[in-house]
Amino acid sequence: MKEFIIIGHKAVTIPFSLNDLPGAAGRMDILCRCVNSALFLSHDLRRDVRVYLVLKGGAQSKIVRFDGASVRYLSPDERSSASLIKKALEKQAQGFWTESTPGVSVKVGDFGDLLDEMNKKIIYLREDGVDIRIKPIEAGSDHLFVLGDHMGLTEDEENIIKGREHEIVSVGPLSLHADHCIVLLHNEMDRSEKHI
Amino acid sequence: MKEFIIIGHKAVTIPFSLNDLPGAAGRMDILCRCVNSALFLSHDLRRDVRVYLVLKGGAQSKIVRFDGASVRYLSPDERSSASLIKKALEKQAQGFWTESTPGVSVKVGDFGDLLDEMNKKIIYLREDGVDIRIKPIEAGSDHLFVLGDHMGLTEDEENIIKGREHEIVSVGPLSLHADHCIVLLHNEMDRSEKHI
Repeated sequence: MKEFIIIGHKAVTIPFSLNDLPGAAGRMDILCRCVNSALFLSHDLRRDVRVYLVLKGGAQSKIVRFDGASVRYLSPDERSSASLIKKALEKQAQGFWTESTPGVSVKVGDFGDLLDEMNKKIIYLREDGVDIRIKPIEAGSDHLFVLGDHMGLTEDEENIIKGREHEIVSVGPLSLHADHCIVLLHNEMDRSEKHI
Repeated sequence: MKEFIIIGHKAVTIPFSLNDLPGAAGRMDILCRCVNSALFLSHDLRRDVRVYLVLKGGAQSKIVRFDGASVRYLSPDERSSASLIKKALEKQAQGFWTESTPGVSVKVGDFGDLLDEMNKKIIYLREDGVDIRIKPIEAGSDHLFVLGDHMGLTEDEENIIKGREHEIVSVGPLSLHADHCIVLLHNEMDRSEKHI
């Protein structure tokens, strides 16, 4: 299982217009592109992937989860994943997972709660991390990656990571969008699994 | 200069609704994501990149060009690049480049015309190509990449490539979307330019 947590600091926690993802929905477009890059192959889905979007732009944080093994009605375009996130936010979220559409679930909770629930070693993506070509990601293991949005991670969020088993990695010499980082992580793991 | 040609076989050549990029606009979402992955760094643009979208879903093919050195009003979301493509298609396209908004231009023309105009060696992305980690992309050179949409390239289009100086490369063991391939090509070139 490969799991990706992406933190959307401005992402709204109530239903939003699909026509203004960057503005009124609080850079929801970033999270939508991460869903795409984490889950899509050409004409197929990555079934062994789960994506967790932490939406922090409301009074109470919510988490929306996409499960590659069971997700339905998802197309690669931003509007498609946005539409499923919106449907999730129309649900009355609780402190436990509620499925809103097949393979998409929502709950009330913050980044720390989610890490507690998952209880796994964290691979945190940051520009100054160790290059994944220098210290390769272990093949065939469970992995949990954490990525920030356009604002990176806050000091508080970094402290939450530092209190847990973690490593800090980078995917190359330039600072890239989170969805581009996910593409590069997948490629590295694909190569490792196929031994090329 | 790094140049990317992406062929959109169904992409319409007249103004379209921004609310249905995959359907009515003929998988315009694919081309919009390619614009994103070719041009965007985190909080910056790749100034040394040009993207050419070949729109083949009309009576007469058109080409829309994004120039990273001069493009304005472009945000990373699909709707933003779609909006600039739409503005380009509102122009009366001719057989020469007409600028529709800063850094975005349009002309009537097909894939072969464009290759004639560019007159450069082609690097064609195909699943069975030589892995870019086996035969690295030369650092610091001009490069012209050609990628297909969800339909790949037609036999006719492949024959157009075969009549010119070209090589066929791949970016990994799995079949990926064109925009994901562009991310991987950039990363390989970024590493090569920084010698890491």
